[in-house]
Amino acid sequence: MRLRKFDDMHLHLRQGEMLKLVLPYTLSQCARALVMPNTSPAVLTASDLTNYRSEILQAAGSAKAGFEPLMTFKITPACDSSSIASLKSAGAIAGKLYPDGVTTNSEGGVRDFRALFPVYEAMQEAGLVLCLHGELPGAFSLDREEKFLEVLQEIAARFTRLKIVLEHVTTAAAVACVSALPANVAATITLHHLYITLDDLLGDKLNPHNFCKPVAKRPEDREALIKAATSGSAKFFFGSDSAPHSIEAKECACGAAGVYSAPVLAPLLKQLFDDVGSDQLENFVSRFGADFYGLPVNQDFIELKEEEWLVPEVLDGIKPFMAGSRLRWRLV
Amino acid sequence: MRLRKFDDMHLHLRQGEMLKLVLPYTLSQCARALVMPNTSPAVLTASDLTNYRSEILQAAGSAKAGFEPLMTFKITPACDSSSIASLKSAGAIAGKLYPDGVTTNSEGGVRDFRALFPVYEAMQEAGLVLCLHGELPGAFSLDREEKFLEVLQEIAARFTRLKIVLEHVTTAAAVACVSALPANVAATITLHHLYITLDDLLGDKLNPHNFCKPVAKRPEDREALIKAATSGSAKFFFGSDSAPHSIEAKECACGAAGVYSAPVLAPLLKQLFDDVGSDQLENFVSRFGADFYGLPVNQDFIELKEEEWLVPEVLDGIKPFMAGSRLRWRLV
Repeated sequence: MRLRKFDDMHLHLRQGEMLKLVLPYTLSQCARALVMPNTSPAVLTASDLTNYRSEILQAAGSAKAGFEPLMTFKITPACDSSSIASLKSAGAIAGKLYPDGVTTNSEGGVRDFRALFPVYEAMQEAGLVLCLHGELPGAFSLDREEKFLEVLQEIAARFTRLKIVLEHVTTAAAVACVSALPANVAATITLHHLYITLDDLLGDKLNPHNFCKPVAKRPEDREALIKAATSGSAKFFFGSDSAPHSIEAKECACGAAGVYSAPVLAPLLKQLFDDVGSDQLENFVSRFGADFYGLPVNQDFIELKEEEWLVPEVLDGIKPFMAGSRLRWRLV
Repeated sequence: MRLRKFDDMHLHLRQGEMLKLVLPYTLSQCARALVMPNTSPAVLTASDLTNYRSEILQAAGSAKAGFEPLMTFKITPACDSSSIASLKSAGAIAGKLYPDGVTTNSEGGVRDFRALFPVYEAMQEAGLVLCLHGELPGAFSLDREEKFLEVLQEIAARFTRLKIVLEHVTTAAAVACVSALPANVAATITLHHLYITLDDLLGDKLNPHNFCKPVAKRPEDREALIKAATSGSAKFFFGSDSAPHSIEAKECACGAAGVYSAPVLAPLLKQLFDDVGSDQLENFVSRFGADFYGLPVNQDFIELKEEEWLVPEVLDGIKPFMAGSRLRWRLV
């Protein structure tokens, strides 16, 4: 069956060798991807952004055929509102804010959210989207997202023309909060948070391959996410947060956070929407995100066939989401 | 300073080579230990018990100097009340019940707790203690302990002369439940649950060395455990649940559950009780457990000196609790 290509509105493409390994999976399923800026070093300036975009397109090579990386910059405590204009000129469509220490490469991140009001102001005027990793530093792990909602509400109330995306929501509370806020506030939902709960991390043996930030939570939270994703609400759209790490970084007590889902997006999302009897897949993965970001709906398509296949245990030294599982839909 | 030796009322000594590696740490600090029967294969019969006891004493060698392993057998769905008498004759002082799949070597464990009423009855008549890993199979991880409390309450109500120990409690709810039940119900508290919360497992990078069952929970739960342990209530006594696994089994996605605390019991418990200003250490580690089990208080002592030392990263291929941490008290 034919599906419109996805817009992956939250993707970690990494750099160098790993970029080359993981990009093909995105190219085969997605027309566009909002590329996260928490590389090492981070994407902070206009020239960082330009360089990273070039690196991605070069890594795509001839396979890039219409693929468009949507570029973002990292908002840090040092971010100055005067840099916004040049970032926009260089092609940024969004700025990503990482609170201090809450995830990969977020050391020295933001603690004082109000101090960045001038930056949000400049972004609002420039028509850039503010993407938030919504977890409050210092809070207990399972509460970080809920405790961040106050921050979201304050920014949304103050900057009513600023488009804001609460990234990878994982709780019923966040879903409810975003739903209740005006149209300028949206949220992304990942593939893996639609599938897993905390039990998939620690219910049986500890499975580092299901460890990510924000951590997967309760079954009730997952239910709320599934409802939000499949309900046809334009506020909730797809962002994989596919976050590859080498097996060594995930295992062997390096404990890196991130689920590598890029290789299995279309098969698993198709399966899920079918299972819940929702006809909203195209909206979730190919329309609502584009609409929110003011982009035209993409005109590329992929083919899935209903054929069982086994997800490999390892792909290029990285363990994919659902490794070893039998899936019903296969990318042609 | 001089401390009475501990009674470690919940200890995994393993077998073979690992037994020889881990036992010395227990011998140096504990007069007695209640040895868990979830070996591979498990301690099920009188001769299993006798053999395991011999193996332990042999591994202790000349260093055993007064050390007494307190033997237990594993209660499985197949356990028959007719076996209780011979287990008692062989020296068992307690039977340990593992619900199905809730921890290491618990596959095929108990789901139907009522089916074992004849076993609890026989244990009650024989004066054996019933030790319960208190987590309900099938429940969400963080709720398993609380949902098990119903089972505990039913058994306690039905067998009023049966001594019951809810092992390694991790929640405020379990502390409250045990506190409210009659004197025949007690609980053990580990060292690590007095120190860590869920954030020590997953708050930053994933740390498999802080992964155990029941999983460490919220700060409020830890507070309740500290209060229970340091309060002087005879219902709460020490059981380390020291559970060694090789580094490979813990890391590299094998994800085995267990914190290996045996090497650091005395230094850390002394430090904790001092920090909270409690004078109940000896009661917690050397009296209340013995009293509950109807054993005379032990007459052995150890020396601690106030001298900083660094816990090694690895001890005999196993990572100890608080590896790399600087401790204030040192075993002489």
